[in-house]
Amino acid sequence: MTRQELISLIRERRSFLCVGLDTDPAKMPAHLRDQKDGIFLFNRAIIDATIDHCVAYKPNLAFYEALGIEGLRQLKLTMDYLHGLGKPVFTIADAKRGDIGNTSERYARAFLDPQGDFNFDAITVAPYMGADSVQPFTVYDGKWVILLALTSNKGAFDFQLTEDKNGTPLYQRVLETSKQWGNEENMMYVVGATKAEMLMDVRRIVPGSFLLVPGVGAQGGSLEEVCKYGLTKDCGLLVNSSRGIIYASNGEDFAEAAAREAMKLQQQMAAVL
Amino acid sequence: MTRQELISLIRERRSFLCVGLDTDPAKMPAHLRDQKDGIFLFNRAIIDATIDHCVAYKPNLAFYEALGIEGLRQLKLTMDYLHGLGKPVFTIADAKRGDIGNTSERYARAFLDPQGDFNFDAITVAPYMGADSVQPFTVYDGKWVILLALTSNKGAFDFQLTEDKNGTPLYQRVLETSKQWGNEENMMYVVGATKAEMLMDVRRIVPGSFLLVPGVGAQGGSLEEVCKYGLTKDCGLLVNSSRGIIYASNGEDFAEAAAREAMKLQQQMAAVL
Repeated sequence: MTRQELISLIRERRSFLCVGLDTDPAKMPAHLRDQKDGIFLFNRAIIDATIDHCVAYKPNLAFYEALGIEGLRQLKLTMDYLHGLGKPVFTIADAKRGDIGNTSERYARAFLDPQGDFNFDAITVAPYMGADSVQPFTVYDGKWVILLALTSNKGAFDFQLTEDKNGTPLYQRVLETSKQWGNEENMMYVVGATKAEMLMDVRRIVPGSFLLVPGVGAQGGSLEEVCKYGLTKDCGLLVNSSRGIIYASNGEDFAEAAAREAMKLQQQMAAVL
Repeated sequence: MTRQELISLIRERRSFLCVGLDTDPAKMPAHLRDQKDGIFLFNRAIIDATIDHCVAYKPNLAFYEALGIEGLRQLKLTMDYLHGLGKPVFTIADAKRGDIGNTSERYARAFLDPQGDFNFDAITVAPYMGADSVQPFTVYDGKWVILLALTSNKGAFDFQLTEDKNGTPLYQRVLETSKQWGNEENMMYVVGATKAEMLMDVRRIVPGSFLLVPGVGAQGGSLEEVCKYGLTKDCGLLVNSSRGIIYASNGEDFAEAAAREAMKLQQQMAAVL
């Protein structure tokens, strides 16, 4: 999905919501937990209930990998379902990959290749290994690398805010440096909602880039703050909520509850767009 | 595998060689390329040919993921074969994972859990997201997190060598800080052979920790230099070679050629031990 297509989709759905599919059998409703393809059935119900309120889905790879090959099979069923829906939607592999050039090429193929098992639109990538670990993700037409800049967790303070000799924190150096590796058409950044006021500094460096913002909801970030500092004329934001939507209820009404939570966020988003 | 068991294995085999299983169908001998389970058959032949010369195997996850679920199935066959061999060997998932705490827990389960599909001894992890992204990998008994410190690629210069206000490069800060997250029994570090002279600085900070050293061979690093600066009384090194061993020949003699290259490195290692 190109940048222009994404912007059009956001305008059409009046939403920049990304629903995180961190699907955990232990938190699923009892009637799905032990069913064959239960994870896929759960995801499908969540997708059907939320797709009119969101523009993106972000499966968290760890939750599928933790279940072994069987988990990845159910992720593939989920992606096949999304691709077959006939409704446009942006898909993000939240995979936090990154390795030397010849290896990142392989990860890019695994997640972005249209001929591959998953065919995501985008993948999250960690910047620690530098240029050759990131650039291989930018070569697929209409596909995106989403580079970690400032994450939403406590550990973000360990290295991301370390200032260099000029007083520039590492996450700003990552933003500055990586601008040479891609552009606004193929590179986004992860900036956690729990550090919303820092979005001002982020926007100084990457004024037009899309930002994927996790941490609204369960992790405590505020949508209002994120919009105040992060919104651009093209929207420029994908705001993710995972647990707050998909586990809004663990009863048989889980899909209705998810729809309700997604709609609440969507209405707030429509108001600011 | 505990630290003491690893040290004993190194002494017994007179080797600290790790063979990287970056298995690429395009580089495999023609007679295996299109065969069912060809990747597993290739790995099995490489393992049989090299196991007496090495102490560890390191499948590079990207090479398997690039082939989709089918690639991971063949990785599982490879791991099952290693576990069933009856010869002790250290196994490393070269996966470069790392995410917020509740997600890193899932990645740890995916790769280290004895009940999981793979049951590796160790996994490589990127430090960018800090403490809570790394600590979940340290909770399994006798299992290891191998944290990226200084990698062997060109991109290492983008951020890893950035000096903070005190003149400390980021990779040294990663070493210092992460010492609080684990210990010499459950944490190793990646330090690239292409920057061998920096091993002196690394050893100042982590004098006793095991280091996983990639970059010998195809990437240009020298075993002699690595030993000069990195060796400890307990060895403290796992030196990886991938392409130099597994693609020593692409003919039907690939396994014999791999054995020859592994033995060459093992003999150099025996001489320094």
